[in-house]
Amino acid sequence: MHILITGAAGFLGQRLTQALLAAGQCRGEPLTRLTLVDQSTPPHPTAQGAVAITTTARDLTEDGAWDALLEGRPQVIYHLAAVVSSAAEADLALGQAVNFDATRRLLEGCHQRGMSDTRVIMASSVAVYGGELPDVLDDMTALRPQSSYGSQKAMCELLIQDYSRRGLVDGLVLRLPTIVIRPGRPNAAASSFASSILREPLNGEDAVCPVSPELELFVMSPGKVVEALVHGAEVAADSLGDFRAFMLPGITVSVAEMLDALERKGGAEARARVSFRPDERVNAIVSSWPGRFRTAKADALGFVGDSDFDAIVDAFMAEHPRAR
Amino acid sequence: MHILITGAAGFLGQRLTQALLAAGQCRGEPLTRLTLVDQSTPPHPTAQGAVAITTTARDLTEDGAWDALLEGRPQVIYHLAAVVSSAAEADLALGQAVNFDATRRLLEGCHQRGMSDTRVIMASSVAVYGGELPDVLDDMTALRPQSSYGSQKAMCELLIQDYSRRGLVDGLVLRLPTIVIRPGRPNAAASSFASSILREPLNGEDAVCPVSPELELFVMSPGKVVEALVHGAEVAADSLGDFRAFMLPGITVSVAEMLDALERKGGAEARARVSFRPDERVNAIVSSWPGRFRTAKADALGFVGDSDFDAIVDAFMAEHPRAR
Repeated sequence: MHILITGAAGFLGQRLTQALLAAGQCRGEPLTRLTLVDQSTPPHPTAQGAVAITTTARDLTEDGAWDALLEGRPQVIYHLAAVVSSAAEADLALGQAVNFDATRRLLEGCHQRGMSDTRVIMASSVAVYGGELPDVLDDMTALRPQSSYGSQKAMCELLIQDYSRRGLVDGLVLRLPTIVIRPGRPNAAASSFASSILREPLNGEDAVCPVSPELELFVMSPGKVVEALVHGAEVAADSLGDFRAFMLPGITVSVAEMLDALERKGGAEARARVSFRPDERVNAIVSSWPGRFRTAKADALGFVGDSDFDAIVDAFMAEHPRAR
Repeated sequence: MHILITGAAGFLGQRLTQALLAAGQCRGEPLTRLTLVDQSTPPHPTAQGAVAITTTARDLTEDGAWDALLEGRPQVIYHLAAVVSSAAEADLALGQAVNFDATRRLLEGCHQRGMSDTRVIMASSVAVYGGELPDVLDDMTALRPQSSYGSQKAMCELLIQDYSRRGLVDGLVLRLPTIVIRPGRPNAAASSFASSILREPLNGEDAVCPVSPELELFVMSPGKVVEALVHGAEVAADSLGDFRAFMLPGITVSVAEMLDALERKGGAEARARVSFRPDERVNAIVSSWPGRFRTAKADALGFVGDSDFDAIVDAFMAEHPRAR
């Protein structure tokens, strides 16, 4: 089993790499080859067993960028590479090139090579939704993205669906809830604050919240997202029905509830480190993302989310022992 | 007022041209210039008043194809050019190039020229819907196209929405019901039969129906579609809300009801000229298109459909006196 991961240097890519190596198999076959790609060379993971690991730097927007990657005929491709939401909003052409055109070239590359059995798994986002929405969304809710990032992801969903329907690839798109708690530092994603307001206080640092305490988010821990990505390779193609994109089972939590959990786990001192300073740009994007979903399709296919928000904080603290 | 029409040699483009010339104005300004584009040079309409009419042949998939067209800075662009559904299904690359890439270049061309006030009106289709659907669709129903044509149109909708949201163009996408009764001869569209089973018998010719009498279609007459396109230029941008694409108010009719109307208007002899010969390829595409809609958004914006199916047949017979 040869697996390719784009965006492999990102935190999700690195965690997925570890999870796949730990599993040592995929779809009933031993993992024999792992190709890790990103803009800059991903860290080379500790070799485990007889897995041949290649790490490579590549700009997926360049002509022919996929050629060498697809020559090795990976059987599962995790396409995680993307320009984040704020960056895609700031630079339309860049977002289109990375988030849409590179995905299209991946699909066309598989098609040209007859890789119809290749499971292509793309990470999509809650940002495909927006505008006036029902209180609770479900698998039949229309996509009306209010950001270029969401638009580009929604276009990729349609393209992956069409190539899959035509039998040219075996595609799957998992719409990721907002991922909390991300490790590391704040980034350009509009949702960056959602991790920051927990991570920084747990590390003894101050954090700024740019949205109101009432804002509800639909969230999933990094651990559960990675489990879902791994599971995505296992789901049978004929169980995917008439559309290959759906939302993963996140949980609904308000910013206030997140801070309550922070206080329970990190103490009043941690809670006091979060101050509110409204940012209209961030608020405009994030408040267009819905907070409540019925994820019937994902549930039926065996995808599993977090039990509650305290579990998400617990998982972060267990994975990052420096966090108090 | 300068108006550009792509696909202007098509029957809808020609009727739209006539309607615009007859109106002589658009958005409160006198019509002064009309640019008509298609793969082959559109017929030059009879000049009316002081309208400067240019007809030109152009392959919109070629590099720079839009340059000369946009140099004239049209204030309203009707983008009707497209590869029809069966052809897009037969040739993925062709459908992508014409139905998606050419639209993208139009938007980018407007963006590069600062034509942010240009009303770009694209014709989309009931084919953006598909798969498992509710009995009655509405403006919040998810798009799950089951054809490449529908996928390409749905991707264009997202792109036009994003460019409009960013203030780069003033876009509008009208999802057209199945248009009946089209004049002329059968074409490669999967929906071609829907006109054929009425038009041919009314002209004393035999026709073959490739789908079952129970199949329901959501239909609109050419006259009402053209009225809707004309109205689309008039609708105020600030009334369009958070998504610029919606279904026009067609009416629901079964094939059996269409044939009943045929018999009422053309006699038992006309009805007897229709024979049923199932075509799985056509049936697979057409039966994925839903037949019942609530078109609240279009209704609120003042778009108007046909009163009933007899009116559609009457209109065809009035417009084509050779039809008995």
